[in-house]
Amino acid sequence: MRERLARYLPCLEWARHYDREAAGKDGLAAVIVTLMLIPQSLAYAMLAGLPPVTGLYASILPLLAYTLFGTSRALAVGPVAVVSLMTAAALGPLFPTGSAAYAGAALLLALLSGLLLLLMAVLRLGFLASFLSHPVISGFISASGILIALGQLKHILGIQVTGEHAFELLHGLLTGLPATHLPTLAIGGSSLVFLFLVRNKLSGWLQAIGFTPRLAGNLAKAGPVVALLLSILAVSLLGLADAGVRVVGSVPTGLPALSLPPLDLVLAGKLLPAALLISLVGFVESVSVAQTLAAKRRQRIDPNQELVALSGANIAAALSGGFPVTGGFARSVVNYDAGAQTPLAGALTAAGIAITVLFFAPLFHNLPQAVLAATIIVAVLSLVDLGALKRTWRYSRQDAAAMAATMLGVLLVGVEAGILLGVGLSLLLFLWRTSQPHIAVVGQLPGSEHFRNVARFAVVESPRVLSVRVDESLYFPNARYLEDRIAELVGQHPQVEHLVLMCSGVNLIDASALESLEAISERLHAAGIQLHLSEVKGPVMDRLKHSDLLKHFGGRVFISQFEALAELDPQTTQRAIGERHHEYSTSTLSQSARKEIDSEKRP
Amino acid sequence: MRERLARYLPCLEWARHYDREAAGKDGLAAVIVTLMLIPQSLAYAMLAGLPPVTGLYASILPLLAYTLFGTSRALAVGPVAVVSLMTAAALGPLFPTGSAAYAGAALLLALLSGLLLLLMAVLRLGFLASFLSHPVISGFISASGILIALGQLKHILGIQVTGEHAFELLHGLLTGLPATHLPTLAIGGSSLVFLFLVRNKLSGWLQAIGFTPRLAGNLAKAGPVVALLLSILAVSLLGLADAGVRVVGSVPTGLPALSLPPLDLVLAGKLLPAALLISLVGFVESVSVAQTLAAKRRQRIDPNQELVALSGANIAAALSGGFPVTGGFARSVVNYDAGAQTPLAGALTAAGIAITVLFFAPLFHNLPQAVLAATIIVAVLSLVDLGALKRTWRYSRQDAAAMAATMLGVLLVGVEAGILLGVGLSLLLFLWRTSQPHIAVVGQLPGSEHFRNVARFAVVESPRVLSVRVDESLYFPNARYLEDRIAELVGQHPQVEHLVLMCSGVNLIDASALESLEAISERLHAAGIQLHLSEVKGPVMDRLKHSDLLKHFGGRVFISQFEALAELDPQTTQRAIGERHHEYSTSTLSQSARKEIDSEKRP
Repeated sequence: MRERLARYLPCLEWARHYDREAAGKDGLAAVIVTLMLIPQSLAYAMLAGLPPVTGLYASILPLLAYTLFGTSRALAVGPVAVVSLMTAAALGPLFPTGSAAYAGAALLLALLSGLLLLLMAVLRLGFLASFLSHPVISGFISASGILIALGQLKHILGIQVTGEHAFELLHGLLTGLPATHLPTLAIGGSSLVFLFLVRNKLSGWLQAIGFTPRLAGNLAKAGPVVALLLSILAVSLLGLADAGVRVVGSVPTGLPALSLPPLDLVLAGKLLPAALLISLVGFVESVSVAQTLAAKRRQRIDPNQELVALSGANIAAALSGGFPVTGGFARSVVNYDAGAQTPLAGALTAAGIAITVLFFAPLFHNLPQAVLAATIIVAVLSLVDLGALKRTWRYSRQDAAAMAATMLGVLLVGVEAGILLGVGLSLLLFLWRTSQPHIAVVGQLPGSEHFRNVARFAVVESPRVLSVRVDESLYFPNARYLEDRIAELVGQHPQVEHLVLMCSGVNLIDASALESLEAISERLHAAGIQLHLSEVKGPVMDRLKHSDLLKHFGGRVFISQFEALAELDPQTTQRAIGERHHEYSTSTLSQSARKEIDSEKRP
Repeated sequence: MRERLARYLPCLEWARHYDREAAGKDGLAAVIVTLMLIPQSLAYAMLAGLPPVTGLYASILPLLAYTLFGTSRALAVGPVAVVSLMTAAALGPLFPTGSAAYAGAALLLALLSGLLLLLMAVLRLGFLASFLSHPVISGFISASGILIALGQLKHILGIQVTGEHAFELLHGLLTGLPATHLPTLAIGGSSLVFLFLVRNKLSGWLQAIGFTPRLAGNLAKAGPVVALLLSILAVSLLGLADAGVRVVGSVPTGLPALSLPPLDLVLAGKLLPAALLISLVGFVESVSVAQTLAAKRRQRIDPNQELVALSGANIAAALSGGFPVTGGFARSVVNYDAGAQTPLAGALTAAGIAITVLFFAPLFHNLPQAVLAATIIVAVLSLVDLGALKRTWRYSRQDAAAMAATMLGVLLVGVEAGILLGVGLSLLLFLWRTSQPHIAVVGQLPGSEHFRNVARFAVVESPRVLSVRVDESLYFPNARYLEDRIAELVGQHPQVEHLVLMCSGVNLIDASALESLEAISERLHAAGIQLHLSEVKGPVMDRLKHSDLLKHFGGRVFISQFEALAELDPQTTQRAIGERHHEYSTSTLSQSARKEIDSEKRP
């Protein structure tokens, strides 16, 4: 009983062993993450097109929800750049930024993605997320980073730029350049420099003057908050707000009131696709961070329970005046490095944010938007990894194509279009590839029972038996292709009496391929050749038993290619295996193994 | 040179060896096919919503075109039921049936599908056709047959029924029943009975009274023409046309005038999707007939050249007042049985139809539409094979689902929707299936170097080495699933020191799966287990060489699972192989082979 409950409320598990030491570590981590989260939550709310305070609201209840349901010890939930961008992209076309309708729609969006995540958890649809392939996600995040940075530059320059796509933004920035507001640029530019230095150099300098690496690192994390305070100070003292420097303005004090989002079904219908993509992207990003961090401490997370936890976090955000949230990469790493032991660190962070809203909200009135923009730019540029495109291209042109398509889609068309384009292309390329599979004639490796490609290995071929290995599941896109290739191969080997189809690479034979196999066996019969199968896998065999193929095709199903040859052409086979009797040498095999690794042929 | 020319004009090849004997056989076949084609071409034109004479036009030039370019010796091209139905479905919503615009659009449709077929031939896109899986095509043809038969019943009853979908038609027929026109029903009903008898019994009766089976069969083929003549006679003598029996009406005499279809780009855009599906369906149907017949005589056809030939036939139809055509199943079989030796039989059939148009056109004025409807019904009902659904279900529920979806789509939504639904569902089911692949722990078959599933075979397992076989290509939809399953398996085998991933079933490792493998290897390291690979295929290995996995993962790539075990756990392996030394028995293997075939387990 307690077991089952603990599966849905993991907090019951870790709470039992919770002690003072863990509390200390969680507390320290919470302080550091809070200092990091304050500027980020304000900034990402601005990025999402919402009042900055909603960012703080989105960093209280959602964190508590994750503490209750989450299985990761180090994941830090809250507003993140990419999801905020997707929120803006979904709501921008529907409502004027800053309007009440816009804010209401953001709540509805969070509610929808919360419900979708719950649905995925209940129906065990977590695997849907895996259709966002690694190249697509990585391309998506890099492109989003660029798009976000471009979108924030207007705040640094203090100019008005409208537009969503890379070109529009670039054009707007160039044409707007002359109108640059110098005081804003001064603040924005200096905070950019400051934040870059803090991020990349400060920890080093602090260590140089004797701080311990750990302390130095933690202090460096507080950099953005320092930037906030300095800029607020500057604005207040120099009266820059009156000089036209755009500031956050009055921020309401007090905790968010609980309320239901506007339950507008028509609007919900419009937002559903965006909500689905936000859920999937958020889930993928969050789970991969959680898994990486868990692996470092040999802990495991339960992906399906993570769906529940993220669902809870988003529903909480929807009820408490926030917007869609998920587990953030940078923040979680900081949380982990700072020594967070349990999800309670998240609850303590929430407390920190709550205190901020209760007591320091008025402070943010004079906070320049330029500084928030600078925090965003510095944060997202670290997500941009263009090298990944080159690395992927070196490994697989098809994956690289999917990645490039995603990036171009995001930059030139839109975030949703980018993802769909990438996923669609990945699937198409896979199907195209499986529609013309690699088919190899195989022979026996001397001194072994193993059969490999005659074009790559020094193998023994039987003059009477043609051994063909098909490197693909047999299903409708390649059924006819198989017929043609087999006919070709038989044409090239007129003297053979048997053809053994080695099915080690065949993981499925669907109805279309079954038809093809029957056709192939008939045509081979006509040519006086008998078809056999070998190394058919259990699940495939179970199906074949329900078909007429085995009854009619007249051939046999051999347990292994070796057994097939041992029966159909004993002389050749025994000669090839021969060496075994005086001395069994792995070296020959390893050599051929090496030969395979060095082989450049790709028949 | 002549060789290359002959590839694009196969007629040059067979024409060289053409002799009187072949001519005689082709001639006889042509006479029989002509007698069969006259009623069918009139009927299918009506089915396509066009004046009957266009059916005759579509049976002259297109046949000549195929004679020039076709590679099948027996394929009979012309109007066919399914394509005529698709034509009606494509044009019906756009223009009033019988209007000049409708007929013009039919020409444009033929031109478009001709050009698309040519494009497919040039770009070698014939493989696209294989995405119409066998279950989808078979379900599509059966459902179309039912839909066509339902649509023709109104002509038998002599009532007006509008509607495209099964329910609309049924409802229309039931409500229209009281208005049944009895003279029409008399003619329609009697010809239905007559045609059924001719089709199923006549040949038997003729043989009973001493005709040779061959002659009897050929005479039976003339049945529909007899029905035509008898009904024309009846209508003329009894003046049934005035009694309200709908007749074909005046049919223009003389060959069709050559002319370009209306080149309306907007209309072309609207028709493109339909044209594409017509091309694909026509190509699939035609090629499968051609391949079956060619195999019977050990001939081969060139699918790509078939694209050219069908393209030529459709362009010819577009230029000579016809509508989309393709190779017909029944007609081709008759052509083959009647002894057609070369495509020239097609040219002679064209001549027969030309003579008909030139001299017998006036004859058809009094031909009742009810009789044409009867010919269609008798023809299409032979295409309906509902048993296929049961057979497919027995073999694969997924394929059966795709088939059922296609049939329901065709009957309830429309022909195009049906195909798209079927293809889409097939692909989705395949992706869903590959997203959670079959993963087996394997052990060594005693007395062999072969490794099989421990859950199905009596095998030897190493206590120190865990052998895992993944039965799927490793790509993004299953990358994360693999991580979870491996973690599970390791949890179940805490004592192992090595995990060998047997990749015989892995035909691709994409970038996402590569990431997963790196993650897996790291996590195994953390747990003190070393990851190795075995039986990696050449093309997959070529890619891995371009990645960092091999450098970092610290394991080895073994040529075979056996070599892996021989190195990592020699004792167990040698003990298992042991039996070989005193006596090598295939019988043990065959037993396990039999065990596999009988096995009911599906882990």
